[in-house]
Amino acid sequence: MHFLDFLDLPAVAKLQQYAESPCDLTGPDRLTFKRFSDYRLSSCGFDLLYATQRLDDQVLDALQALSEQAELVDKFLAMKKGAVMNRIEGYPSEERRVLHTSSRDVFRENPDHPASAEQAGTQLQRLRNFIEELHAGHVVNEENMTFTTMIHVGIGGSDLGPRALCLALAAYGRPGHRVRFISNVDPDDAAAVLADVDLSRTLINVVSKSGTTLETVTNERLVRAAYERAGLDPARHILAVTGQGSPMDDPTRYLATFHMYDYIGGRYSATSMVGMVTLAFLLGYEAAVELLAGAHAMDRAAEERDIRRNMPLLMAMIGIWNHNFLGLPTLAVLPYSQALLRFPAHLQQCDMESNGKSVTRLGAPVRWLTGPVVWGEPGTNGQHAFYQLLHQGTEIVPAEFIGFRRCQHGRDLVVRGTTSQQKLVANMLAQSLALARGKDDENPNKRFAGNRPNSILLADRLTPHTMGVLLALYEHRIVFQGLCWNINSFDQEGVQLGKILANRLLAEISGTEGDGRLDENSPEKSILQLANIAK
Amino acid sequence: MHFLDFLDLPAVAKLQQYAESPCDLTGPDRLTFKRFSDYRLSSCGFDLLYATQRLDDQVLDALQALSEQAELVDKFLAMKKGAVMNRIEGYPSEERRVLHTSSRDVFRENPDHPASAEQAGTQLQRLRNFIEELHAGHVVNEENMTFTTMIHVGIGGSDLGPRALCLALAAYGRPGHRVRFISNVDPDDAAAVLADVDLSRTLINVVSKSGTTLETVTNERLVRAAYERAGLDPARHILAVTGQGSPMDDPTRYLATFHMYDYIGGRYSATSMVGMVTLAFLLGYEAAVELLAGAHAMDRAAEERDIRRNMPLLMAMIGIWNHNFLGLPTLAVLPYSQALLRFPAHLQQCDMESNGKSVTRLGAPVRWLTGPVVWGEPGTNGQHAFYQLLHQGTEIVPAEFIGFRRCQHGRDLVVRGTTSQQKLVANMLAQSLALARGKDDENPNKRFAGNRPNSILLADRLTPHTMGVLLALYEHRIVFQGLCWNINSFDQEGVQLGKILANRLLAEISGTEGDGRLDENSPEKSILQLANIAK
Repeated sequence: MHFLDFLDLPAVAKLQQYAESPCDLTGPDRLTFKRFSDYRLSSCGFDLLYATQRLDDQVLDALQALSEQAELVDKFLAMKKGAVMNRIEGYPSEERRVLHTSSRDVFRENPDHPASAEQAGTQLQRLRNFIEELHAGHVVNEENMTFTTMIHVGIGGSDLGPRALCLALAAYGRPGHRVRFISNVDPDDAAAVLADVDLSRTLINVVSKSGTTLETVTNERLVRAAYERAGLDPARHILAVTGQGSPMDDPTRYLATFHMYDYIGGRYSATSMVGMVTLAFLLGYEAAVELLAGAHAMDRAAEERDIRRNMPLLMAMIGIWNHNFLGLPTLAVLPYSQALLRFPAHLQQCDMESNGKSVTRLGAPVRWLTGPVVWGEPGTNGQHAFYQLLHQGTEIVPAEFIGFRRCQHGRDLVVRGTTSQQKLVANMLAQSLALARGKDDENPNKRFAGNRPNSILLADRLTPHTMGVLLALYEHRIVFQGLCWNINSFDQEGVQLGKILANRLLAEISGTEGDGRLDENSPEKSILQLANIAK
Repeated sequence: MHFLDFLDLPAVAKLQQYAESPCDLTGPDRLTFKRFSDYRLSSCGFDLLYATQRLDDQVLDALQALSEQAELVDKFLAMKKGAVMNRIEGYPSEERRVLHTSSRDVFRENPDHPASAEQAGTQLQRLRNFIEELHAGHVVNEENMTFTTMIHVGIGGSDLGPRALCLALAAYGRPGHRVRFISNVDPDDAAAVLADVDLSRTLINVVSKSGTTLETVTNERLVRAAYERAGLDPARHILAVTGQGSPMDDPTRYLATFHMYDYIGGRYSATSMVGMVTLAFLLGYEAAVELLAGAHAMDRAAEERDIRRNMPLLMAMIGIWNHNFLGLPTLAVLPYSQALLRFPAHLQQCDMESNGKSVTRLGAPVRWLTGPVVWGEPGTNGQHAFYQLLHQGTEIVPAEFIGFRRCQHGRDLVVRGTTSQQKLVANMLAQSLALARGKDDENPNKRFAGNRPNSILLADRLTPHTMGVLLALYEHRIVFQGLCWNINSFDQEGVQLGKILANRLLAEISGTEGDGRLDENSPEKSILQLANIAK
């Protein structure tokens, strides 16, 4: 594998040249049936409609060349087979394999990386047994009653992915089963959730790879205290998902323990035990495994070398076109599905923590833009909120729409000749067209400049399988981009400084190291004093 | 009043010059006690700490001049007194007054705009009577039982503000009272909420100024159908908040009706009946009015002409410094309070719909940047998600932190020598310092460039009063910026094109106007066909 600087890839110069006069989508005959038809890609149940991006065949050919010059598919394959992709050459770094794909490579005889796939299979078998015991009524509370609620306690990658997935699939929840989440160190977060459940019928799933995450350790303590106040035995209610050998890996303190491994980063861990324990409680084991099957299907589809046939690779290349060549600093992900309410928050982590980087794989400062700011809210809600800026603002925001032809619950109603689901999809398609095409008007305040690039992802229905496909699609889009920018998408050194400073402030507040450790004129002392934070 | 182009304000040239070498926050002696102390402003219970912005006295003086040259405070006063601020000169436009401040100008004898303040007072008196009857058990269901749940049905401004406020203040909810929200036209949104309540003990509050909002009308129909299926009388359960004379203004169909007025735009309507009915149900009338008192206090404080003493004006000017002069395209709002979970979503609407504009008050194209992309999530959660990019990404993101010295619920625990609330605040202060100051390191992957501008807003505790202050603070920050950019912050023509196209697609789907109205080769036909949307 060669790790070339982005600016040294020959296709970059060509793309810079094309970017000087990108495809104009506002022309009367631009958005033809042929263009919509040519710029459509179907994979694993999703259609990607990208005619409303500012590109043409010439640009696509150059993006194809870019992906080949950066050896993106080769590196992706190497990642899946266990290459040490989480590293910076020549400097101390995490030096880890990146094997989140193994957590769902459990459906075939010859997985890409047998050792990790076997560990995934073992954990899944243990989970299956636990869930079967639970649902069969063999695991019960102090009064022989079954458990109805699971509270998932984690933060960051141990929270956002599992939360987004549970919300997305709540419509398929087993009757009488629900899940809640506690993540923030804000004590009001835990208090609000605990006040709303019957602790005696509740399981707590504490998730931390290191077993030392400040927020999660603190929240586990809050929860244990609540159980003790209620006269209940925490060890009968609390599960752990943690790394083997971590301080939390202590079976005597937990009802059950499942393992996660250091070759899966937090933001890619939703399909490991990090997400699967809570999902299997909510949906049942078989439905939860459907999610893995969907993700695995996309893991395979992402091996294709033709960008016009590889959905995550094409989305990665279009993103680079918009960000590095057209100069657009953000990306809006806009699901037309209320169930995907928190999917943008998951992507925010997965994308921005992966690709918000400033040094290359070789430790040199990057001389090009890396990851954009990713944000979004579900439509049609967003239409009544920030779409004004998308259509008429001075910031151009590329958009990725996600929609479904059918709803989940099946409780729909015809009003004014169409169902709500039809209204939802029609609005999504209309927004895509309006952003791309624009509209002239005599009144300057009613003019729409158009040329706002966007794509649509469309599937039949949001199911566990579809959700798995979608999750892996975005994971791979992000990995392909990081590889193209020649950065390490798998570490997060940028979160360390804040932690160090927070610990310094907390030592000062608690007085545990208060003997002149901080200089009286230090910014830390100054801000504590002026913020009026009680010692 | 003079409506000068932003680029014609004399201070702009000076600020452009200063922006060539902005204050370096990474120097060893830059963040001194004196700087923290000088760059702090206290108003209505909040402290604004802005030493970690890239500015100095010279810049502040120029921003003061900018605010005077644009006559910001004069225009704000004119707005509060009833000037027609929602207009574009020389072109058809909404031509409305902008009087959201009147909805809380109910505490003094001589309000700024007596007629609208009187209407606000009348509606509040009617609300007080209704809530008292409800809480006294005089308004009951078919079986003489009281109501425990209110479902708020609205979208955009009729949803985001009320939702953010109810979540923020849920800790103060009356025992046994809860509120839920339905907004999206996605039928799964309504289905999930309706499946989770006892309809017989539930009130439905339908909110739409026009009485014709597609999503809200559709969801009201879904709800009415659910009541009819349950054998219950919708007119005993459903309230309306709507404009006088709208199609929804029909007392025979509703248990009660409250009015909103066309001089309050949706995104500024949270303190009108749009938010107050649901808030008063949840909190009780008196506590809800505390929110108005807080907002009113900030309405008065925003009249101050010295930017160093006017918090929303200073925040507006700092935002313009970061956006127009330092060239930063987004703004992250990061509350260190789980209760403020949806406050960024409210701000996204309030800010981006107000200031995502491309023409001036005089109908000319703007030649400068208007509103940024606004986004954010609560800390510390965000620290484990996208903060990597904030610290080490190639996109520089200005941040506004919001925090509180005390928690709401009062259920806290000392772990490792500090309470959770202390950990929360310490983390916020640490992030602010880390972003500003940065840190060098031998390992390039552990380097932090610093100079990431940010501010901290800090109050004692998130209460109804504090929340009112915070809401008005951001409303005025947004209005001051729109005035400075010389745009109309009060219309939303940018949402129209998408609506027109959606209706065209829906007519095609339902076949109601399917006789050749759309050309066979039109983009609308093409996208419907290729998206495989059933006719």
